[in-house]
Amino acid sequence: MTDPRSTRSRTAILTAARALLLKEGPAAVTHQRVAQEAGIGRATVYRHWAQPEQLLLAAMSGSDLPYFRDPTPPVRPWLRDQLRAMATEMALPEVVAVTLTLMQGAVWSPQIADQRNHAIAAITDRLRAALEIAATTGELTADVSPDDAASLLIGPLVYRTAMQAGTVPDALIDRLLDGIGLSR
Amino acid sequence: MTDPRSTRSRTAILTAARALLLKEGPAAVTHQRVAQEAGIGRATVYRHWAQPEQLLLAAMSGSDLPYFRDPTPPVRPWLRDQLRAMATEMALPEVVAVTLTLMQGAVWSPQIADQRNHAIAAITDRLRAALEIAATTGELTADVSPDDAASLLIGPLVYRTAMQAGTVPDALIDRLLDGIGLSR
Repeated sequence: MTDPRSTRSRTAILTAARALLLKEGPAAVTHQRVAQEAGIGRATVYRHWAQPEQLLLAAMSGSDLPYFRDPTPPVRPWLRDQLRAMATEMALPEVVAVTLTLMQGAVWSPQIADQRNHAIAAITDRLRAALEIAATTGELTADVSPDDAASLLIGPLVYRTAMQAGTVPDALIDRLLDGIGLSR
Repeated sequence: MTDPRSTRSRTAILTAARALLLKEGPAAVTHQRVAQEAGIGRATVYRHWAQPEQLLLAAMSGSDLPYFRDPTPPVRPWLRDQLRAMATEMALPEVVAVTLTLMQGAVWSPQIADQRNHAIAAITDRLRAALEIAATTGELTADVSPDDAASLLIGPLVYRTAMQAGTVPDALIDRLLDGIGLSR
């Protein structure tokens, strides 16, 4: 049985931790700052997440990426919609922050690296399924591995949003689809 | 009060680190090479910057990456060499670390964001010059803006090295060059 007070404090802690992550970066996600921001005792934060790294990881996670699930033919318009949704999300500051924290955290934390690897593998598997459908419908005019397809499709969205701090026009998405050999 | 010897050694270390970064790329910015280049003991370098990432970040501020300088026709082989060098560097863990530190730090630090924006603008300007040459030599078969070219060329390298923790084969680089409309 879950104590409803415990559920409430957990939610308040996660909300506070994500707010701090967005405003000040991962270094601000300490038990003390999170407790203060959430208006909760520090001991309560420790009870839910004993280690700072667990607290940060909890702040960053909480959602499986909702992209590239359940591909349907014709693949090109389906994939265009998926990339459009992803690009729009990735242009949001809080999504940029969490993406980069996950990427950067993986350098020093094996736990975060696991979380990143899990997300990356899921994306590759979903793209593999989509490419197999595109091969059977005749939309795919060139050979491309699922790993390469992920790099070619998602890499430019990361660069545009996280490095150039810009948005992704539809014309760029069409160019990405051309680039992996999906015929118009 | 600052010890003047400390100020002098700090300056000498940064000068040496930037010289190495410019001449040989981020992988060359190690405590050992920097100490050698600066004519200073390795322990002194460690005293100023304990971690390799800190040393590299310090060197990167106010300096700039040695890629895409001085394009020469034909543009495709020149650009292939530039991307090959960049991809090989980016597969090194310490270069991944500093790239991600720069990207992630820009979310919460205006100073780091300035540094990132400066680096991104320099890369775009250099690619613009290269694309202009490719247009005059007839190598460029499609219209692509310098911003889009940067996303399409560098984004997949970032995804492959920093997200997939993988390396970049030559075939992927050729695909990137095809993708921006540079004829073989």
